[in-house]
Amino acid sequence: MRLYLLPKTFKGQASLEIKGKDFVYLTRSLRLKESQVITGRDREGRLWDLCIEKITKDSCTLSAKKAETAQERTDALPQTGPKKTIILYQCLPKGRKADDIIKKATEAGVRDIVLVKSRNCVASLEGKEMTRLERYDAMVTEAIQQSGSMVPTTVSGVIDISEIPDDFEKRTDGVARMGIVLHQSKIENQNNDLFNCLKDFDGAVALVVGPEGGLEESECQALIDRSFKAVVLKTNILRCETASIYAIGAVQTIIESSCR
Amino acid sequence: MRLYLLPKTFKGQASLEIKGKDFVYLTRSLRLKESQVITGRDREGRLWDLCIEKITKDSCTLSAKKAETAQERTDALPQTGPKKTIILYQCLPKGRKADDIIKKATEAGVRDIVLVKSRNCVASLEGKEMTRLERYDAMVTEAIQQSGSMVPTTVSGVIDISEIPDDFEKRTDGVARMGIVLHQSKIENQNNDLFNCLKDFDGAVALVVGPEGGLEESECQALIDRSFKAVVLKTNILRCETASIYAIGAVQTIIESSCR
Repeated sequence: MRLYLLPKTFKGQASLEIKGKDFVYLTRSLRLKESQVITGRDREGRLWDLCIEKITKDSCTLSAKKAETAQERTDALPQTGPKKTIILYQCLPKGRKADDIIKKATEAGVRDIVLVKSRNCVASLEGKEMTRLERYDAMVTEAIQQSGSMVPTTVSGVIDISEIPDDFEKRTDGVARMGIVLHQSKIENQNNDLFNCLKDFDGAVALVVGPEGGLEESECQALIDRSFKAVVLKTNILRCETASIYAIGAVQTIIESSCR
Repeated sequence: MRLYLLPKTFKGQASLEIKGKDFVYLTRSLRLKESQVITGRDREGRLWDLCIEKITKDSCTLSAKKAETAQERTDALPQTGPKKTIILYQCLPKGRKADDIIKKATEAGVRDIVLVKSRNCVASLEGKEMTRLERYDAMVTEAIQQSGSMVPTTVSGVIDISEIPDDFEKRTDGVARMGIVLHQSKIENQNNDLFNCLKDFDGAVALVVGPEGGLEESECQALIDRSFKAVVLKTNILRCETASIYAIGAVQTIIESSCR
């Protein structure tokens, strides 16, 4: 393990008691013993030195001390983690594909994963939204811990594709925003090249990826009308679960590059 | 279906009989009827118009006619498919992860997937190499058909990491080659940025991706000594099945860009 994501109830107490799943994780999966120290991260992104003070049959007590900055630590936190924000608007695919996408996007440090309903979505979370989002939340926690991500990834939704915010170019907090929608159809003058869109761009990216059946041309056009750039990837027709992480890899590699 | 990958026995006959799995695929999965035409691709990459002449209980007869170029066809073959060669040297991960990587790499049009044995590989194909490669071959066929890929992807291996060819800069067929190895450790002066490595590069790329436990520093160094560039991705620590398709997305997007 590279990082233990502290429970939402942790607000900086000097000591905390861990039970249940997290207890099993720390003592069985990670086999931590009394007096060992691990790195924790709270939900605001701050790091903590956690010392296992005591292990009983069904709980362990940790002492928490605000940690030095990552640079000064012996623990090998990645120095290369992403610095720019990516938001993924993922049209809802079927069950296992959604799991796959959420795990991989979280590992790569996507900040927000927003599940979207579009016309060709076969899957639906209707009636099970709460339980499903809880499950996704647990998957995100695991992926953050495994990847040592410093990005507090969230999963939310389901929103309709028309509800994707279009204020990417209007915000005034000084961070440029670009909205990108992946598509396969030919929309005149809208077959942008991802590399060319991003190579001189310094800011945050919102990425819209269609469901199994792809996006309808009218759905793409509506996003274009709201200042999204439509991009055709220079590759074969990818399944949606491949397209997401493929595009995240491309977007992140280009916007994180040190050359600018 | 976008493409039917013709059997290896097809050498341009005017008519061929299809039995077994392919018969089931064409008539049940795709529900093709007599007189319908689909696009086929042979193992040399040529396209064929295939007409279903006759369907019996356990076989169907196709007539084959050399097809027009993809541009003139009504069938929506992707015009945007990749043009540059990527070879993936993938250190062998455990079973399902290998499946996932092979499918996604094939969809993206990686030309050769070579399975590699490195020190931290937990998985092994010893004693089951033939059956496993056959299974991978079937997965590649399916992924090619699904993605409409024009790239005749192969899967081979297992070779030792020391056997990865190092002639990337020595070939004389006019195509530049670059070898890239993904790593996480700090090797002095070898933390290259993927974007900077590739943004002005016009040629083929060989990509080495480690197994679950990563590559040893000495393994990286051996590849660097053989003219590979060691790249640290500007993201979190990715699982190997995420790293492969993430990096393929990044590499392909940069080298395929139309801007040069």
